Amino acid sequence: MISVVIIGGGNVAYHLINVFLNTKKITIKQIYNRDIQKIKHFKNKTSITSNIESLVNADIYIIAVSDDAISTVSSKILNKNALIVHTSGSVAMQNLKTIGRKGVFYPLQSFSKHKPVDFKDVPFCLEAEQQTDLDLLKQLATSISPKVYDINSEQRRQLHVAAVFVNNFVNHMYKIGYDLCKDYNVPFDVLVPLIRETSKKVVSLTPDEAQTGPAKRNDVKTIKNHLDLLTEKQQEIYNLITKSIQNG
Amino acid sequence: MISVVIIGGGNVAYHLINVFLNTKKITIKQIYNRDIQKIKHFKNKTSITSNIESLVNADIYIIAVSDDAISTVSSKILNKNALIVHTSGSVAMQNLKTIGRKGVFYPLQSFSKHKPVDFKDVPFCLEAEQQTDLDLLKQLATSISPKVYDINSEQRRQLHVAAVFVNNFVNHMYKIGYDLCKDYNVPFDVLVPLIRETSKKVVSLTPDEAQTGPAKRNDVKTIKNHLDLLTEKQQEIYNLITKSIQNG
Repeated sequence: MISVVIIGGGNVAYHLINVFLNTKKITIKQIYNRDIQKIKHFKNKTSITSNIESLVNADIYIIAVSDDAISTVSSKILNKNALIVHTSGSVAMQNLKTIGRKGVFYPLQSFSKHKPVDFKDVPFCLEAEQQTDLDLLKQLATSISPKVYDINSEQRRQLHVAAVFVNNFVNHMYKIGYDLCKDYNVPFDVLVPLIRETSKKVVSLTPDEAQTGPAKRNDVKTIKNHLDLLTEKQQEIYNLITKSIQNG
Repeated sequence: MISVVIIGGGNVAYHLINVFLNTKKITIKQIYNRDIQKIKHFKNKTSITSNIESLVNADIYIIAVSDDAISTVSSKILNKNALIVHTSGSVAMQNLKTIGRKGVFYPLQSFSKHKPVDFKDVPFCLEAEQQTDLDLLKQLATSISPKVYDINSEQRRQLHVAAVFVNNFVNHMYKIGYDLCKDYNVPFDVLVPLIRETSKKVVSLTPDEAQTGPAKRNDVKTIKNHLDLLTEKQQEIYNLITKSIQNG
């Protein structure tokens, strides 16, 4: 049995609390949040507090607060014997200012408050200073997900920027597609199967192998026709990405 | 029973032939391709020819050749009583130079030669000059897919450029993510669940509602950290898309 204290009241904290409450091998000893209102719906399930000085003992303290608050919050956890981890993709492990042992427990997925999370499909990127702590984090992670990876702070930083490209920037490409459809009363649904297929292809092919289209085959005529349909800002993006595809 | 002649030996022709051969309501009367080698594996299933002057009669002639060849090929089909359609996303219906009736039968999906196609998930964008021809195309399309749309040439042109954004450009975002991972020996697999989730989200939310990340919340510090990790070319793309997200 691993005992944890969860620190934070945002999306990541919320979903971790829910999955841990339903996992036999894990006990949530306490939940802390500055604003008690945000965690009060858990008060019948475990102890909750808004006083960081009254944290109870646990094997692992999981800090799931905004990136900027991680250092400060970590410095207030005065348990020397615990492992203290954060859940951020973009903060180095050494930014934990704690007297206890340090680690990272980063779930690489996009969480929305109102959408249930299937943790079996959430990769956990783990880091610790000591092998025994890494093993403990692996035990914690594998109890909720089969996708568990050793990722150091440098790799995690890289993953975080890669995630911006494959998530936020991809979503922006969807937005431009959406706008183009809307202008001509075309239902965006028509594009959904293509979106799904494109996202599936990168599992069996590398993105280089999967690439097709006018940029790839340097189809100047189609590229020109497309540019004629776009706003100036859309053209700028179309031109830059087309050039980038062509330069490999 | 609808009788068709298929013109072409590329990916679209190949997959349409295969699905029609397995559809009771449709008979392929003949397959034509300039190079007979590319269609000879169908010779035991139906009549094949490389002589466009010897085309047999059919209800619909489906021209699935490269965009540039559509006009020329269509002008050689001398059946006045048939409906002649092409399968291209970027060619207007009026580019068919035929003495017969005209239409478009555009499957909006990315086809690879060696990957079987599940036509139930392929949207068909249909167009015709006459309502009776549109009805005939609907009958043809619904016999292989439930996703059938009335799309005129202007809308189809718009869809085609939108498809470049949601397919080719999205795939290029995956490629940059892939490169960033490779540089630091991070398995790309770690990103696959996020890729899948991002592609699923646009079904239930608009891309605007689904957007998150440092650009959206104008997190200047994270943006700066990310830029430090990128090559000059990657920075150019990161900056442009970030700006575009922020301008809505």
